Order: sequence, then structure tokens, then C-alpha cells
Amino acid sequence: MEQFSTPRTDLALEAREMITKRVSQEIPGVMVETSEDDDILITRVNITTPEAERVMGKTQGQYVTIEAQGLRYKNTPLQDKVMEFLAQELAGLTQLPRNATILVVGLGNWNVTPDALGPRAVDKIVVTRHLQGMLSPELKGGVRSVCAIAPGVLGITGMETAEIVHGIVNKIKPDLVIAVDALAAASSHRVITTVQLANTGIHPGSGVGNKRFGLTKESLGVPVIAIGVPTVVHASTIAMDTINTLQEQASFARYFKSMENLTDSDRQIIVRQVLPETLGDLMVTPKEVDRLIADIADVVAGGINQAMHPNIDYENIHIYLH
Amino acid sequence: MEQFSTPRTDLALEAREMITKRVSQEIPGVMVETSEDDDILITRVNITTPEAERVMGKTQGQYVTIEAQGLRYKNTPLQDKVMEFLAQELAGLTQLPRNATILVVGLGNWNVTPDALGPRAVDKIVVTRHLQGMLSPELKGGVRSVCAIAPGVLGITGMETAEIVHGIVNKIKPDLVIAVDALAAASSHRVITTVQLANTGIHPGSGVGNKRFGLTKESLGVPVIAIGVPTVVHASTIAMDTINTLQEQASFARYFKSMENLTDSDRQIIVRQVLPETLGDLMVTPKEVDRLIADIADVVAGGINQAMHPNIDYENIHIYLH
Amino acid sequence: MEQFSTPRTDLALEAREMITKRVSQEIPGVMVETSEDDDILITRVNITTPEAERVMGKTQGQYVTIEAQGLRYKNTPLQDKVMEFLAQELAGLTQLPRNATILVVGLGNWNVTPDALGPRAVDKIVVTRHLQGMLSPELKGGVRSVCAIAPGVLGITGMETAEIVHGIVNKIKPDLVIAVDALAAASSHRVITTVQLANTGIHPGSGVGNKRFGLTKESLGVPVIAIGVPTVVHASTIAMDTINTLQEQASFARYFKSMENLTDSDRQIIVRQVLPETLGDLMVTPKEVDRLIADIADVVAGGINQAMHPNIDYENIHIYLH
Amino acid sequence: MEQFSTPRTDLALEAREMITKRVSQEIPGVMVETSEDDDILITRVNITTPEAERVMGKTQGQYVTIEAQGLRYKNTPLQDKVMEFLAQELAGLTQLPRNATILVVGLGNWNVTPDALGPRAVDKIVVTRHLQGMLSPELKGGVRSVCAIAPGVLGITGMETAEIVHGIVNKIKPDLVIAVDALAAASSHRVITTVQLANTGIHPGSGVGNKRFGLTKESLGVPVIAIGVPTVVHASTIAMDTINTLQEQASFARYFKSMENLTDSDRQIIVRQVLPETLGDLMVTPKEVDRLIADIADVVAGGINQAMHPNIDYENIHIYLH
Repeated sequence: MEQFSTPRTDLALEAREMITKRVSQEIPGVMVETSEDDDILITRVNITTPEAERVMGKTQGQYVTIEAQGLRYKNTPLQDKVMEFLAQELAGLTQLPRNATILVVGLGNWNVTPDALGPRAVDKIVVTRHLQGMLSPELKGGVRSVCAIAPGVLGITGMETAEIVHGIVNKIKPDLVIAVDALAAASSHRVITTVQLANTGIHPGSGVGNKRFGLTKESLGVPVIAIGVPTVVHASTIAMDTINTLQEQASFARYFKSMENLTDSDRQIIVRQVLPETLGDLMVTPKEVDRLIADIADVVAGGINQAMHPNIDYENIHIYLH
Repeated sequence: MEQFSTPRTDLALEAREMITKRVSQEIPGVMVETSEDDDILITRVNITTPEAERVMGKTQGQYVTIEAQGLRYKNTPLQDKVMEFLAQELAGLTQLPRNATILVVGLGNWNVTPDALGPRAVDKIVVTRHLQGMLSPELKGGVRSVCAIAPGVLGITGMETAEIVHGIVNKIKPDLVIAVDALAAASSHRVITTVQLANTGIHPGSGVGNKRFGLTKESLGVPVIAIGVPTVVHASTIAMDTINTLQEQASFARYFKSMENLTDSDRQIIVRQVLPETLGDLMVTPKEVDRLIADIADVVAGGINQAMHPNIDYENIHIYLH
Repeated sequence: MEQFSTPRTDLALEAREMITKRVSQEIPGVMVETSEDDDILITRVNITTPEAERVMGKTQGQYVTIEAQGLRYKNTPLQDKVMEFLAQELAGLTQLPRNATILVVGLGNWNVTPDALGPRAVDKIVVTRHLQGMLSPELKGGVRSVCAIAPGVLGITGMETAEIVHGIVNKIKPDLVIAVDALAAASSHRVITTVQLANTGIHPGSGVGNKRFGLTKESLGVPVIAIGVPTVVHASTIAMDTINTLQEQASFARYFKSMENLTDSDRQIIVRQVLPETLGDLMVTPKEVDRLIADIADVVAGGINQAMHPNIDYENIHIYLH
Repeated sequence: MEQFSTPRTDLALEAREMITKRVSQEIPGVMVETSEDDDILITRVNITTPEAERVMGKTQGQYVTIEAQGLRYKNTPLQDKVMEFLAQELAGLTQLPRNATILVVGLGNWNVTPDALGPRAVDKIVVTRHLQGMLSPELKGGVRSVCAIAPGVLGITGMETAEIVHGIVNKIKPDLVIAVDALAAASSHRVITTVQLANTGIHPGSGVGNKRFGLTKESLGVPVIAIGVPTVVHASTIAMDTINTLQEQASFARYFKSMENLTDSDRQIIVRQVLPETLGDLMVTPKEVDRLIADIADVVAGGINQAMHPNIDYENIHIYLH
């Protein structure tokens, strides 16, 4: 039950925050760099050593997060800006030649709203692989060969997503796989407001649906970029956070004798009482999660479309959409 | 911000539990009666005095809750049993003559999964008002005149639900209104597992969507039965619960000097830090809320159908469904 | 079975075409005026006498159709142009003061794709009636008080749509009702490519769902503008058309002795053999009707929004959308 | 444009009917056998020679159709009976060992209602491949290893369905592929009322979406059973049928000089005038096609489930459904 003591997060950014706060120092082998643009914050976390990988609980590699609190509110100019940053970061991480073929995979369960980010983003991807022979020469230079699929989850297909993707990769032989997935954050203010790109692929245990499999360069034989957006916080994280807040608030010291000694197992006793395990996975989401997922899926798909097809006229993007 | 100190609940059952626990005695004017049938618990809470109404924060009247933990899992026999209990309780509360006309109103927003219980239940209601002239004599005795609507929410229609329902009631002149709504519980184990019936109608501030209006005998001129199922717990309730649990656990006493004196405003400081208000309404729901809402909407609609049309052959109920 | 002899159409334009073709002369009391703008054709049919009403089988009043064959293909600039024409024609027909309240009613069944135009358009209407107190003074001048509802069909609610709308009109007291509905055309090339506005309201027997009721100034007490788009051709119309074409083609004369004498009852015998009545309503629709309905619902709602709220910045229209 | 002269059908049954009617004799090498059970008619068409294959325009092999006009109306006992016949015929055609692995593929576009039969049926398939390790010994004997996917269409994925299926088959190595698809009929009374099974797989040009690829034993390396239900008639078929009816009706002979000589190219001229090709594919469907597709998808999936898992208790089938 280690997840109770350390709130679960799929964001490298949050994992680092929590660890540095606990040990009160930077983690050796983890490089961090931030840049800001008005209301958008970009953070680059680079995990460079096996030791850093172990401490962070995240695979070695680059993680870029783009945060904008305003994404919670319908705001087209901000969405467009995030889309462009995402396109730039994605282009930077991938360095694809013009004639590359890309397979976009939307992970997650389309019947479970907070897990449906991947399938919904795939709906908006401009697929072009089947049009390559038909494109005019001027378009051809700026329209890469893109195909896309939302393979469904194990309970729906009876097949591991990794099996399906592996089978398709062997047949299609793409140069890159981009995997889109819904994530869990540790902090509620990051839900729907943060996009993470990673050049590490998808690892077991991550995502809202808690993948049992990995989609990585090792398993598929081609590079895998993971793009994720937190759509939930585990309810246990809220409970754990409450205890931590109580403990850390200096002004509350008067209530306690020895709260700093509250053991991990005692923390778990409390959380389990508030949230009995028999209830299954309880998720904290904004009430309007249906609309928010639709909006952020547009942003993610738009960023991928721009990075893959730099020459498409995005005023008329709809022409390319099914 | 009083909701932070007392967790918000739309269940009379939970309001009573919380108050009796706090004051360590029964509430005068509140009568309680329970009965059990295998895995189903029925509780009847009767608020009989204005003073009890004030203490409970719930209108005077009868509240019946039917609880079955097993509703979380797909289990047709249990669903059928809950459906029958609901039909019996509804028949008991309404005592309708055979020739009565009933308007079923599905409250809530169909675009917000945990608020969509009302509209989804209305989808499954056997409407018959337009068939009254066509029914065979043997059917007629057991098929009441039922009509149904999901009027949508203020942000979708620009009209208060109460205005729409009032207009329709004036035109249709039903003998009874049944209003179905998604509720908030205080305790996560009651989410989707509990159905509440009340002969008090719907009151302002209740429901997942936090109604600004009431639908009551006073406002509509006809009796109103409210049927609700909790589909969420407010995230702030989880935080508040965590503090309470910490405080109440005798074995944790060693950590505290004076935890019993933790003030309400200090509690709120903690909750607001964990869950900043700027994030809007955060809801705790089971991950599979989409499927669970569909299942429980079937149970609620089935119970209403059985109570209204006692002679329909439910093997062939689908024939009556649009 | 009169519908077999004269193909069924809800478009005044087509009714006039068919009659003038058959009688080879203009219909007295029916005024026609057309104007063209690139790929858009606007036709104004004015039925001015009771005799013209009888001959046309359409109520006295003004009918405006906006036709653009290109609406079949995703084409945003054309859609925007049709939207603007629709807004102009609607503003011309209604002459509303700035402080008017408008109720938009989406007719039809949301579960039947070709009948779902009304409900889908209502989804995109900018409702503002509930915001009137909150609007800034500069906005107020250009944002009328609009509310909207898709009341569902008789088989879903057990209530005539006219009863529901009447009840709401009595309560809300709007200055105008705009009713949006899916229509049947006689000619397949008008499906999804034509928008009709009429100041006559909705009459019994019209629409894909074949309304049993009317929504008119007489029945509701307020003016009613009908906006419709043909989404289907009745299959019997295709059969009837085939016979007519065979008969009219001069080059086919050699096959016939006396085809001009083909009786109406013989025509019906043929049609009924091809399309047995037991099969229920067979509709001819484009294969991609789901997408086409979504697109044209956007155009219709956009036209209404622009006519009602001339000062809204349509770059940011989404802010107003639920 | 050969499809104009011979109405397009995906049913072997109809192809045979049309040809025998035209040439007024049985087709050598095509064996036919029918059996009846109350309101259900089963026809077995066996194409046994290359010459018969050429004349019929259908691949050599066995085609079984189960027809029941009552499927148009909600009628659970009839649906159950068709489901059982389908299960029996499927079991007969496949002769699978108990430990076989089966991949069910739902062809077609989920965004186009009449083409969505395959994806909707796949939604109801009881997938078990991932549960094989967890089944109790008594269940294991009667629950085969089934997996399922709806891969989407070329315009959505950028990949030929055959590529995706091929990739998955190579990875999963099933013993049998069952491909479910929406078909076109020549006669409107067969729409939604007929289920066809064939041991020939899926061939290019067939189905509502007009497949460009085949899914056959030759292409995939494993046997492929095709299960299809007609959901549309091409509008051109209605027009062609009208001409044929006119011509064949003896009582109409008085109108004609030489109608028997109406050339194929003249027929096409008429059809093209009634249904200009620029309009794209026009389909004739019942108005309530959304509901009918949902119902028949249940029947198809139910038949597959019963044939694959003979020992599952179908009272509690829902337990196995996602």
C-alpha cells in the first residue's frame, strides 16, 4: 500500500516536488529548467541517472510539462497558445524527417469519462497515411504520414493494448509511436490544466486505468513519445494531503504533541477508514469533467496535428478531418 | 462556508447520523425505523416537528432510504429486489387512485455524468398518457396515465427548471409529480448504493447541481415525491472526514495535545489549502460512474414503472418503451 | 394515399415547382422572387390568397429558402455565408425590439438521426435569459433574452409537443417563438443543402416526424417563425420520381403507347409493390447523415444566434455556450 | 455502372433470386435448401463451382440466411429464437474445439448509423481471452477464449482495416476470425430482418461502407466467418425496382409498345436523373434505424456469445459484459 504514504502521481514534476520537499534538497541526477510565458509555465525535468530514476520512481528521460490554470475555463486564445507550445515541444523531442510515418495511439476506456482522453484525442487527429498518393506536391512537403487508433482496454477487447499495438506496429512499421493517455495527479489544481510530454513511453502502473503493460522503445522497437493530461486525483490523495497539511501548518502546532512522528501505517489506517478499499477506485474530478475532457482532447490533438503537419492551413483543418 | 464544518449530504439518514454522533443523543421529533432483508437495509426517517426540521436542516416529512452495497456490482437479482422495494415504498407514500395522471421529472444536466441520473431515468419511464384511449380494458386497470420530461438545467435552457415544470403542470394538471435527482452523500460507501424517497419534494440547494429552486406542493400545487440517489461525495467532505477520523481514533490520542479543540475555522483553513476554492466543485465518484449511473437509472425507472403500472407484464416491458 | 401521387415535400419552393410544372402556368396569388450570390440561391415564395393556400397545400405567408449545394461538403466559409444570410432573413422576418424575449424550440426526436436537427440546433443556441441581470451595459444592447428547449416527441414524453410548448409560453411569455425542425424534401439534391424560414409557424403533418399538432400564432398567442432543413426524401418519392422521369423523357416515347394516361391508382400500385407499406416509413438519406446533421445544426443555430445577438463577438461565442 | 442494371445486394439469397428470375431457370452449381419454423425462414445457398461463382458474383462457399419479418418490431421471444438459430448455424459452420481462440471483428464506421452494426455488436461480445487463467474448472469447459475489436474505417485510422486485423491476427494467433458487417440488400423488406452467415469471409466491394479489402482465409491465414445484416437499400435500387415493376406488371402492358426492350443504358439515364451521382451515396433506411441497429446488434452478439460459450448461464450474461 505504498501509494498511501506517497500520493500517486503520473507527473514527473509532482514526483520531484514531493521528494525535494520531503528530503529538503535537490535530487542528484535530476535536472530542472523552467520558462514562463504570461499565463503558461513550462518545466523540463530530465532524469539522467539510474539512481535518479530509482529515487523519482520514473524512468530515465525527458519530461516536459506545460501548465496553464486558464485551461479550466473555455478560452480559445489560451488553448491555441498551449497547442502551439505542445507542437513545438513535440517537434523538439522527436526531430522527425518529413517522410516519417507516425502512429498515434489513444489509450484508455471510452466508456469511462476521465479515462477517455486518449480515444477522444484520436478522434481529432488528422490522419493522412491513406492519402499519401493523392497529395499535391506543395502539400506533400508539410503533411506527414499519420495513422491513429484507439485500441480499447483489456476488459473490452480481451487483448492487452500492448498486444494490439505491437501487432499493428509490426504491420505498419511506423517511425514513431505517440501514445496519448489520461493521468492521475497528486494535486487537484493540475487536473486538466497540465500537459506532460515524455520521451520515455508509457510504463506499467501509470494512467487513470492503471496500465498493466508498457509501450516503450524496448517493447515496440520504435521510439514512443507519451503525451498525458491529468484528469483525476485519487481520493486517497485528498485524504493524505489533508493529514500532511494539518501536520505542516506551523500555526497548528499547538494542537499536537508529536505529530511529526505520525507513522505511515497510522496514516493508512485513517485513509482506509475514510475511504474503505472495498469501494474500488474513487476519483476526484471537476464536476464538468465531460466538457473539460472534450476541450483538452482538442488541445492535445491540435498540438500533435501541428507538429506532424507543419504546412497544413489550420483555418481549413476541418477539411482533413473525418 | 458552513458546509465545510458539517459535510454536505442530501440524505436525511446521514444528516441524522452526523448530528446524533456530534450531540451524542437522539434528536427530538425525529422518528427512525429500520428493517432488513438479506443484503438490503430500509430506513424510515420521519421529521415531525418544526424544531426537528431546523436541527436536521431538512424539511418536515417522511424520508425512506433503501441501501444495498451490492448495487456497486452488476447483479440483476439484487437490482430487481431493490426495484420492488422502491415500487412498494413509492406506492405506500403516494396512495394513488387508478385513474391518476403522474408527471415524472428528471432533474439535472445530461452532459455531466454524475448529474445525469434524472434524465437517464426518464429515458426508461413507460409513458402512457398518450395511449389512454388505445388501451384494452384489461390493461387499463393496471396502467396509469404517466408522462415524463427531462427539462434540462438553467445554463442549457435559460429557464429555471421550476418555471418549465410549473408551466407544464398548469397545462397537463397531473395528480402527482415525481422528481428524480442525483444527490451528494457524506459518505463514499453510500454512492450509487442508496435510493432515497421523500414526500417533501425538492428543496433549494440540494442535488449534485445545487438547485436554486424548489419543486414542492407549495410551489406547484400538486404533491411532489422526490427520488434521489447519491452519485458523488464533495471532495471537501473527504478532507473533513480525514480530520474527524484522525481526531476520533482513540489510539491516535498520543499524537495530540488538544485536538478536541480544533476550531471550525482551522478545519476550513486546512480544507481550503488542500482544495482551493478557485478550482470549482470537485466531486469524488467511482471511476466507473458512467456505467453505474446507467444501472441505477434502470433501477429507479423500474421501481417507478412498477408502482405506476402494477398490471404490466414486466417480461415484455420493452414493448412499452420508446 | 394522396402523398403517392404528389411527392411529399415540406418546402414551399418545391410544392410550387411541382404544381407549376404539372399545370404549366404560374399559380395566382403566389409571388416568387429569387436572388443569387455566387453559390447561394435565395428564393422568396409569398402565398397571398386563400385560393393560393389551397392549391399549394401550404398556409398563407412568407417562405424564404436559402440553397447552397456546397453545404454537403465540409466548407467553413460557405457555412459562414449561409449563416449570415439566415441571420439577415430571420432579422427581416421578425423585426424584434432589442428587449424582446425569444423562445427557441427544437422539434423532433433526438434518438432518430434525421429527425434530430431541432434538438441538435438547440444545443448550440446561446441562451441568455438567465444572464440578463449580469450583462454589462455595452453587451446588453446587443444580447437579447433568449431561452431554448428541445421538448422531445409524443412517444418519449407522453405529452404533445404543443402542450409542453404552450405551458412554457404561458409561463415565460416570450415575444417570439422560433421552431426548428427537420423536413422532408421531394428532391434528393435539396437534402441538407437548403434552409427554409417561414413566418407561418409549424403545421400538422409536416416534418420528418409528421407532427400531429401545430405551433402557430393562433395556437400559442405569439408569432412563430419556423426554420427547417430537409434531411430526408421519402422512399416513395424516389419511386414516384422514377415513373415521372420515364414518362417525361421525350427520347423514351418510343417505348410507350399511352404512358401519359398512366393513372394515379396505377402509380400507387407500382410504388406499393416496390415499397410495401408494412415496412413503415422508409427514408432516403445520405450515408453520412450523422455528420451532415451536426454541421447544418451549427449553421442554423449560428444564424439564430447572430440574428438574436447582433453585438456578440462571434470569435468568442464559445464563452456563451454551455 | 453495372450496379444500376443489377441492383446491388450483399445477400447470396437475393443474388440468386434476381438471376433465376431473369434467366428463368436454376443456376447450375448453386444448391438451395430452405427450412421454416413459424415466423423464421432459413435458407442455405451453397455455391459449389467456379462457374456458379462467376454467375452469382459471389465467392464459392456456404451462405445461410435467417429471415424473420418480425425483427422490425420489438419482440424479445422472436429475437431470442433468431439468436439461437444463429448460434446453431454458427456452431455448425465452425466446428470449433473447446480450447479454440476466436477473434471477433466489428467492421464499419461507428459514426455512420447504418454502418455501425459491427462496432455495436462487438460492444456486446463476451470477451474472455484475458480471463482464461481465472475461470473455474466447470466454467472453463463451456467458455471459449474470445477477444474482439472494432478497428474503425480507413478514413478514421489511415490504415486499411485488413492491415490492422492482419497485424492483430499475427500477434494473437486466433483459430477463427468472425467478421460482423452491415450489408446492402436489394429489397427493402430484408432490411434489419435478415442475418446472413457465410464461410467465405469478407470480399472487396461488399458492405455498406464498400470495403476495398478482403478478410479471407487466403489473406489472414485463418478461417473467416462473415456475419452480416442488411441495414440499407441503395436508393438507386428503389428506382431500378420501380422500372422493373412497371415493366413486369402484366396489367400495365396496355401502356407500352416495347418496354421489354428498355435498354440498360436507358435505365441508367433515368436513375441518374432521379438520383444525380454528385449527391454521393444515398441510402434507404427505416426512420427508426438507430433503434433497429441497436436491437439487431444484440441479436448478432447474442448468437455469437451462445455459439462460443455454450455453458454460460445467459440469465446472468451481464456479469461477463464490460
